[in-house]
Amino acid sequence: MAEINPRKPAWSGRFSEIPSDELLAFGASLPVDKRLWREDIAGSKAHAQMLAKQGVLTWEELQDVLRGLKEIESEIAAGDFVWDMADEDVHMAIERALTNRVGEAGARIHTGRSRNDQVVTDARLYLKRRMRQLASALNTLRRTLLELAEAHKKTILPGYTHLQKAQPISLAHYLLSFSQMFARDFRRLLAAHEAADLSPLGAAALAGTGYPLNRKLTADELGFSGLTINALDSVSDRDFFLDALYAAAVCQVHLSRLAEEVILWSTEEFGFLTLSDRYSTGSSIMPQKKNPDFAELVRAKTGRVIGDLNALLITLKGLPLAYNKDLQEDKEPVQDALDTVEASLRVMTGMLATATFHTDTMYAAAAGGFMAATDLADYLVVKCGLPFRRAHEIVGGIVLSCERHGIKLQDLTVDELQGYFAGFGRDAERAILVEKIVENHSTPGGTSPKAVAHQLEQTKEAFNTDEQELALYL
Amino acid sequence: MAEINPRKPAWSGRFSEIPSDELLAFGASLPVDKRLWREDIAGSKAHAQMLAKQGVLTWEELQDVLRGLKEIESEIAAGDFVWDMADEDVHMAIERALTNRVGEAGARIHTGRSRNDQVVTDARLYLKRRMRQLASALNTLRRTLLELAEAHKKTILPGYTHLQKAQPISLAHYLLSFSQMFARDFRRLLAAHEAADLSPLGAAALAGTGYPLNRKLTADELGFSGLTINALDSVSDRDFFLDALYAAAVCQVHLSRLAEEVILWSTEEFGFLTLSDRYSTGSSIMPQKKNPDFAELVRAKTGRVIGDLNALLITLKGLPLAYNKDLQEDKEPVQDALDTVEASLRVMTGMLATATFHTDTMYAAAAGGFMAATDLADYLVVKCGLPFRRAHEIVGGIVLSCERHGIKLQDLTVDELQGYFAGFGRDAERAILVEKIVENHSTPGGTSPKAVAHQLEQTKEAFNTDEQELALYL
Amino acid sequence: MAEINPRKPAWSGRFSEIPSDELLAFGASLPVDKRLWREDIAGSKAHAQMLAKQGVLTWEELQDVLRGLKEIESEIAAGDFVWDMADEDVHMAIERALTNRVGEAGARIHTGRSRNDQVVTDARLYLKRRMRQLASALNTLRRTLLELAEAHKKTILPGYTHLQKAQPISLAHYLLSFSQMFARDFRRLLAAHEAADLSPLGAAALAGTGYPLNRKLTADELGFSGLTINALDSVSDRDFFLDALYAAAVCQVHLSRLAEEVILWSTEEFGFLTLSDRYSTGSSIMPQKKNPDFAELVRAKTGRVIGDLNALLITLKGLPLAYNKDLQEDKEPVQDALDTVEASLRVMTGMLATATFHTDTMYAAAAGGFMAATDLADYLVVKCGLPFRRAHEIVGGIVLSCERHGIKLQDLTVDELQGYFAGFGRDAERAILVEKIVENHSTPGGTSPKAVAHQLEQTKEAFNTDEQELALYL
Amino acid sequence: MAEINPRKPAWSGRFSEIPSDELLAFGASLPVDKRLWREDIAGSKAHAQMLAKQGVLTWEELQDVLRGLKEIESEIAAGDFVWDMADEDVHMAIERALTNRVGEAGARIHTGRSRNDQVVTDARLYLKRRMRQLASALNTLRRTLLELAEAHKKTILPGYTHLQKAQPISLAHYLLSFSQMFARDFRRLLAAHEAADLSPLGAAALAGTGYPLNRKLTADELGFSGLTINALDSVSDRDFFLDALYAAAVCQVHLSRLAEEVILWSTEEFGFLTLSDRYSTGSSIMPQKKNPDFAELVRAKTGRVIGDLNALLITLKGLPLAYNKDLQEDKEPVQDALDTVEASLRVMTGMLATATFHTDTMYAAAAGGFMAATDLADYLVVKCGLPFRRAHEIVGGIVLSCERHGIKLQDLTVDELQGYFAGFGRDAERAILVEKIVENHSTPGGTSPKAVAHQLEQTKEAFNTDEQELALYL
Repeated sequence: MAEINPRKPAWSGRFSEIPSDELLAFGASLPVDKRLWREDIAGSKAHAQMLAKQGVLTWEELQDVLRGLKEIESEIAAGDFVWDMADEDVHMAIERALTNRVGEAGARIHTGRSRNDQVVTDARLYLKRRMRQLASALNTLRRTLLELAEAHKKTILPGYTHLQKAQPISLAHYLLSFSQMFARDFRRLLAAHEAADLSPLGAAALAGTGYPLNRKLTADELGFSGLTINALDSVSDRDFFLDALYAAAVCQVHLSRLAEEVILWSTEEFGFLTLSDRYSTGSSIMPQKKNPDFAELVRAKTGRVIGDLNALLITLKGLPLAYNKDLQEDKEPVQDALDTVEASLRVMTGMLATATFHTDTMYAAAAGGFMAATDLADYLVVKCGLPFRRAHEIVGGIVLSCERHGIKLQDLTVDELQGYFAGFGRDAERAILVEKIVENHSTPGGTSPKAVAHQLEQTKEAFNTDEQELALYL
Repeated sequence: MAEINPRKPAWSGRFSEIPSDELLAFGASLPVDKRLWREDIAGSKAHAQMLAKQGVLTWEELQDVLRGLKEIESEIAAGDFVWDMADEDVHMAIERALTNRVGEAGARIHTGRSRNDQVVTDARLYLKRRMRQLASALNTLRRTLLELAEAHKKTILPGYTHLQKAQPISLAHYLLSFSQMFARDFRRLLAAHEAADLSPLGAAALAGTGYPLNRKLTADELGFSGLTINALDSVSDRDFFLDALYAAAVCQVHLSRLAEEVILWSTEEFGFLTLSDRYSTGSSIMPQKKNPDFAELVRAKTGRVIGDLNALLITLKGLPLAYNKDLQEDKEPVQDALDTVEASLRVMTGMLATATFHTDTMYAAAAGGFMAATDLADYLVVKCGLPFRRAHEIVGGIVLSCERHGIKLQDLTVDELQGYFAGFGRDAERAILVEKIVENHSTPGGTSPKAVAHQLEQTKEAFNTDEQELALYL
Repeated sequence: MAEINPRKPAWSGRFSEIPSDELLAFGASLPVDKRLWREDIAGSKAHAQMLAKQGVLTWEELQDVLRGLKEIESEIAAGDFVWDMADEDVHMAIERALTNRVGEAGARIHTGRSRNDQVVTDARLYLKRRMRQLASALNTLRRTLLELAEAHKKTILPGYTHLQKAQPISLAHYLLSFSQMFARDFRRLLAAHEAADLSPLGAAALAGTGYPLNRKLTADELGFSGLTINALDSVSDRDFFLDALYAAAVCQVHLSRLAEEVILWSTEEFGFLTLSDRYSTGSSIMPQKKNPDFAELVRAKTGRVIGDLNALLITLKGLPLAYNKDLQEDKEPVQDALDTVEASLRVMTGMLATATFHTDTMYAAAAGGFMAATDLADYLVVKCGLPFRRAHEIVGGIVLSCERHGIKLQDLTVDELQGYFAGFGRDAERAILVEKIVENHSTPGGTSPKAVAHQLEQTKEAFNTDEQELALYL
Repeated sequence: MAEINPRKPAWSGRFSEIPSDELLAFGASLPVDKRLWREDIAGSKAHAQMLAKQGVLTWEELQDVLRGLKEIESEIAAGDFVWDMADEDVHMAIERALTNRVGEAGARIHTGRSRNDQVVTDARLYLKRRMRQLASALNTLRRTLLELAEAHKKTILPGYTHLQKAQPISLAHYLLSFSQMFARDFRRLLAAHEAADLSPLGAAALAGTGYPLNRKLTADELGFSGLTINALDSVSDRDFFLDALYAAAVCQVHLSRLAEEVILWSTEEFGFLTLSDRYSTGSSIMPQKKNPDFAELVRAKTGRVIGDLNALLITLKGLPLAYNKDLQEDKEPVQDALDTVEASLRVMTGMLATATFHTDTMYAAAAGGFMAATDLADYLVVKCGLPFRRAHEIVGGIVLSCERHGIKLQDLTVDELQGYFAGFGRDAERAILVEKIVENHSTPGGTSPKAVAHQLEQTKEAFNTDEQELALYL
């Protein structure tokens, strides 16, 4: 039986001294990459089975190896496995445990494989799994948005630009805008999944190997849809991680925009929204406080996710080929970013689902103010044939005058309107009713009930298609 | 005829004072967005034609508008157009010029359109054009790499990991690894193109409009493949710019890796490469210097491109809906990043195409050293049935001993080898010939001539498919 | 007279071909570094004077050189100088112009100097100038804040945490918090100034020189306070640029926080502030809009300034010593960031100085709500001897009950209060008057009129000290 | 005795429901901020003592509190304290433990204090400690560099620019350039220390408090050198963390440059350096490999440290005043960055101290090549009175011709030199001896033995001053 010195690295043959524990700790990736244990074991199983089919391992050796790996798998799953930091990484930890169990056969499964291709096989499998999980969490949020939009087709609130009231819109119209963002995020997650979906196993250190490997067999066994083309690129490529980090960063930016709105709407000043107590916290000093802490955290965490994307981009900058130890710094930002986005998605989903929307406050905010101004200008264009720029100028003057007199647009009589421009007719009053305005914006994508119903249908259809695509992977 | 005061913004109706010139300069986007003039004119033409078909403009007005826009187009193309910084942006500059020419009809084409949807229409058209240009420049580099790989299928050089000699590989194998990186970059550029390829025109300010627009007509006329779904999202979405910035950042990171290798290979110490004088510069003080300045700049510019990506991600963080002036900061990082990557692609293409590869130096570097060690270990596994870990340990010891005696692996006789491990046979010597080693790495993706020939074929095929796809867009 | 071929770089001696115009454009820094022309001429003057004192130039040559440089200086200042992009950088452009005027003496001033130390001398002088300018613009904003704080010592508004009303504070207290941020920014700007304030001139390429230079003389002439210690570091160090970029980034983050508040306060919902028309813009489609565009742009530009800081940090990562062409990418992010921050400072200064603060609205917002809750809890602690946690719990319950009944804290009678906790006394009502609460927070740094008066004094004093320090440099 | 429900947050009074465990986990900072336990306890002790002196606590209560805190301190230090994730943060965990021990007095120490000022007090104390530790680790590296420089005043190697051999320099000259970088890093660390060195305790939530606190007392007790001026700023300011992150980022960039050189010098191609086996690792597949893993990791980790700086800058962008939950995201990037830099400093110190410098290889590399070219040109200037540009051109031609004939500069006879330019004298040969060249670069900061001796003296002196300053804090 092979004796493996737990304090002696796998490569110590040519070395007269080995690094100190402190140094090994600096260099160790185990605290980070042990989360890839499932993938590492799956990769070893597939590799061993292939080696046996190719005649490199005997069937007896294979049985031993598979049994050993299964035991280790159970142990880790049960939390009973002892991770020894003297093992540099998850690969060595598992190989050592295997060899201790099944002897030389355990060491033999490293045949035709390098840690360079082993780690990136694990990384790709791991990323695929995480992308599917993330896409699933994202779709739960998308479903919640759709349900809310369905429920709020008739709720009217002010639409803002520059955080100034712009035009009245329906809450469904508003919510569906986030649906589009998250639909795009779904595509980016799947693009990262696709980028990861090629097997690098068999690339060995950087040049392939002389052992009679069958790369197709291991790729199929591991559920990859194809093979990487070039061994050098296989071991130095981390684009799939970048793709995932980028998808995560944009998704978190979208979440931060949603969080910002939740924070604004929860203020006493806006008053459009009350968060459930379950999604709020208080102050240790101010008893009246009900704080949107979780929304703030979602917004804040955008910094760390963008930071994670930067970390890997910067690490890769200027790296010569093929494998450099720098690449070991790839997994921690990915784990941090994906954990963050996944948790943020869940939090935002629950927060929206349990929030109370104050539709009366919204309506009152929409009906006040000067949001009808555009429609008054449109009236002048359509009914009086003015060029828009001229109509805009006239209405701008009316608004200025109203503000100075402290009155609202709706307070003006037709006579008064005619004082500003003689062409206003009796129907001008109706043109500036808030429901009428909303109804009027009926171009595709617009906020009229009919246009929104169509948006809702399109958005649902796209969502269902995405759900079906995701189901194929799950 | 409409009098448009060149010092009076389009929205001055309700204002008693307007911003100072200094402030308008701070707020002006014209220096940046005037590069989108083609797209702005195309958008106005399409919008005007549609308005005429829908009966909002008369056919006479349309003729005037089209004639005016054509004249402006010619003027700008000829460099005769006077850009007035008092115009805040390219839209106002062109609209003002149009109105000065054709009167009120010029102002009337703003009907049913807001700068919010106008600017994002321009932005999407612009991005599509730039993505195609960039993809084209990228493919020129890809073609050059393929030609070089074809020419260097038999050139042997050391493959490195950790910048230490690892295993001998062919130069074609090496070059094809960059082909894979740039193939992935191509997909990212097209993904950004696809993201931009939906028409937002008709979203108006954020809610659609009451004018009887036909969004499908303008989308078709402008070559968009579809419509955006939601008006609010249409004016606040900049994901397509992010996608482009991300594609640019990864591509520049890849270029920085290639540049790093060029810099290393051009040193006296490596000596694998001499750049053409056309792609080198000298020192104003050291007459002997021949510096790889252009490769260094390509490497350095990675910082600015990642910085550009950050700039927009950060700008978007936490923005409430829908349009905020913050979004005006979107175009400058995009222009800067795309200009940088496009120029870098051209420079690297010319640099590689004109460089001299010192194949003899490469071969000598591959034949020396201890790169045969892995194959010697593999010999022990295959011929003597040792587990790999054990073989590795034996060969590690041989290397250490050689180093101490200042001799090379190839200098050892079989007798000496047997001194380390009795199982070495007569054929051990042959196992460590550099050509033999290269030939031996024959798994798919490996560096053996046959494996490389297959890689080359796969890579060419994928390239041709990409070329055809790009041709559809050009 | 020396013939200098305008198409032939200074280093073409050993080259058989030179780069194409396109390549020179890629490599040229002239568009960026020509902004350093003042510094380049000052450096050449100082170097020439020193060379003459050291006997390397004759006094006649020196006179010629100084006359020539003076002419060039006037030409550039007047806008008459023709910049030729064939010159790679500002140094060559000016040296070529000089040599064309005064012949060989012009070339001779390059004696004992390399572009490596020349460019970094220019860079340090330039940065010192910009830091002083920026500090001056910053101090104008600081003065404006002090004046506003002085004027608003009695204005009461709600202080927010989590964007929820927390405790009533004075507007002076609020404004003085920004004074502290900008006071720290001042120190960071001066730290960058100090970092730049050592002369590298004489470091030559990287090793010093054999010419009998007197580095002290040129340092004094150029106003540097000392010499760099090591020549290698002198030409590769860009820490002073990093320091400036970092100072700029933090300052812009502070400005973004102020801008965010301006945007929030300008909403109809908060209504605390109306921007001057001069610091607002309108909408081309919505006549009623008055948008805080300039504040939004200040907020948005935080992205680009952080991006600029990243750009240089990333460029420097992993660069070997000493000079690499990568360093040429240093100046553009610095110019961009400093221009941005300087303009933002001016905009925010004018915006605040011309804004109208709606003090009645602020007061009403402070008096409503439940902000007195903390003080009611403090009452229970001080008057009834409860531990704070218990008092907090009681008052939390009162707030919850008020909210459910739609009443305010101030509406509760003492009897009702006693219904919640028997210990409330007659004086409980007074404890929750807003003026009383503000007055009560009297610890140093607190919001009571007296504490704020002290803060104001401390802040003014620190400001005056800073002004005096800056005056020493101007 | 107070019953504190471990599942009930401190602010639950007005809440009918509380967040789920999953949500509390999302919002909890305990896993991160528990590293600040020392500071939290110190802060509570100081606050309690002050409260007693001010008569808010009785002396008996104070004794109880101090005893309780001391016990908790011992427990945590011994690893026996049970952290309960139901406590949101380190403050609640310790307060709860205290109250369980000493009853109501434990709750009473929260009097006049909010978590807003408590957390930032802890943060400032923590940062001060870490800055001192980091400065200490930095100085160990600085000392090692000085010792190496002392030992290598006569070692000659090529100085590089553009990674091309430029001019021969001494190894001491080279090493002292890093000494300057790290000396600047020391100043940045102390600047962050100084920024943190003001006590915010007593700012309470954002407005100060009505309790008769003595802020000076707690500040003195905690070793702060002064008080923050404004309460609002006190709780929202994280500039000191930014300063530390920035100092860390620049330091890591410097380390990455040193690491890059170690990696290059360790290649077979350069061969200037052999790392100790203790600071190297091997390959699991290639027995000959000796990899500079630790240097690569130091280089790679630059990405994460820059990412950490970004994370906090981005989090702070656009935050309104005063405290927002976003600020909770401040500690993790700081811990990560400081841990990374501290470990990297230790690794690089040991790596350099144990490395073998191959001085013969360095010398051979310096003597070969064309590095004497500048000096040959200088010869023409000094001896023959040519303008430098002309001399440069002549020598450039000589180099080109030598390269074509495959000979070195030193191989040329004086007769041959005169073939290129008649003015060369007999002494030209001596001008290009490598020792002579090094000796010749004698300007302050230059590489001549004398100039380097002076540099060494200056650098040591500055180092000693820094050591003394640091000692004051330790």
